[in-house]
Amino acid sequence: MIDFTPIGIIHSPFEDPADMPIQPAGATGVKGAVEVFEQFRDGLKDLDGFSHILLLYHFHRSRGFDLHVVPFLDTEPRGLFATRAPRRPNPIGLSLVQLDKVEDGVLHVRNLDILDGTPLLDIKPYVPEFDARGEVRAGWLEKARKAVSNRRSDGRFK
Amino acid sequence: MIDFTPIGIIHSPFEDPADMPIQPAGATGVKGAVEVFEQFRDGLKDLDGFSHILLLYHFHRSRGFDLHVVPFLDTEPRGLFATRAPRRPNPIGLSLVQLDKVEDGVLHVRNLDILDGTPLLDIKPYVPEFDARGEVRAGWLEKARKAVSNRRSDGRFK
Repeated sequence: MIDFTPIGIIHSPFEDPADMPIQPAGATGVKGAVEVFEQFRDGLKDLDGFSHILLLYHFHRSRGFDLHVVPFLDTEPRGLFATRAPRRPNPIGLSLVQLDKVEDGVLHVRNLDILDGTPLLDIKPYVPEFDARGEVRAGWLEKARKAVSNRRSDGRFK
Repeated sequence: MIDFTPIGIIHSPFEDPADMPIQPAGATGVKGAVEVFEQFRDGLKDLDGFSHILLLYHFHRSRGFDLHVVPFLDTEPRGLFATRAPRRPNPIGLSLVQLDKVEDGVLHVRNLDILDGTPLLDIKPYVPEFDARGEVRAGWLEKARKAVSNRRSDGRFK
C-alpha cells in the first residue's frame, strides 16, 4: 500500500462526469484554476517559465475497474491499459495543460479536461525532449487520430 | 489519504540511484522489462498496437522532499514543481518508453530511466494528440534542451 495526499484542488467548468470532453482536443480553450495548498506553494517557483505542465491527479469519482472496457472513441472492448478510462486499479489521471499564469498559489491553466474538485497529486514541467515522440503507432486509437485530422481537413474545403 | 497498490514491478539495469541516466535522452536504447501482476494481465490486451507507452510508478527509494532543489541539469535552486526530482510530496514518476513486445504479462520496453525494482502504478497508451505539444517554452530547462540539440549538431560536423 502506498499513501498519497492531495497537494491542491483543480477547479474547472466540468461539474458532471457525464458532460466532459472525451479528450484534450475537445477541451481546447477551456480555462481552469489549479489551487495549490499553502504549505506547497514555495515549490511553484520557476514554474511560470513553462508554457505547458503535466497535472497528475486522483480520479476521485472513479470506483472499481474492469480489465476490458469499451472506450468512448471506439465500439469494441479494449484492454484497460490500452485506454485512458478513469476506472483503473490506481485511478491516477494525467493531463497536459497550457499554463497561462501563476498567481498567489493558483495556476491559471487552459485546455483542461478535468472534473471540478479533482484532488491534485503532482505537477511536473512539460519538456518535449522527455515527454514527446513524433513517430509513433497508436494502436486502436490510430483511427480516432485520423478522424481528428480529417475533420480539420474537411473544414478547410467547406 | 489516497491508497494505491502496485500492479507490477519494473526491471531495469539500474540498481543504484547514484548511477542512473539523468534524463530519458541519456537512456536511449536501455532495455527493461515491466512485469505486470497476474490479476491485471487481461488489461494488457490491445497494448501491443502502441509503439510508446507512459509508465506511472512509485519513486520507492525517495524519502521526504524540499520545496527548493538544485536539479542535476542546473546549478541554481529551482521550485520543486518546476523540476522532475524524485523527492516530491507524492513521489510519482512518469516515463515515456518505447514498447517492443508484450509477452506473458511482461512488457519489453526501451529507453528506460527507471530504477530496478520500482513498483508500477499504471500504464497508459501514449497518444501525441493527447500528450504532446510542439511549440512550448521550457523555462530554466531551455538551456539544457539547447545543449542536447547542440551536442547532436556538433557531432554532425565532426
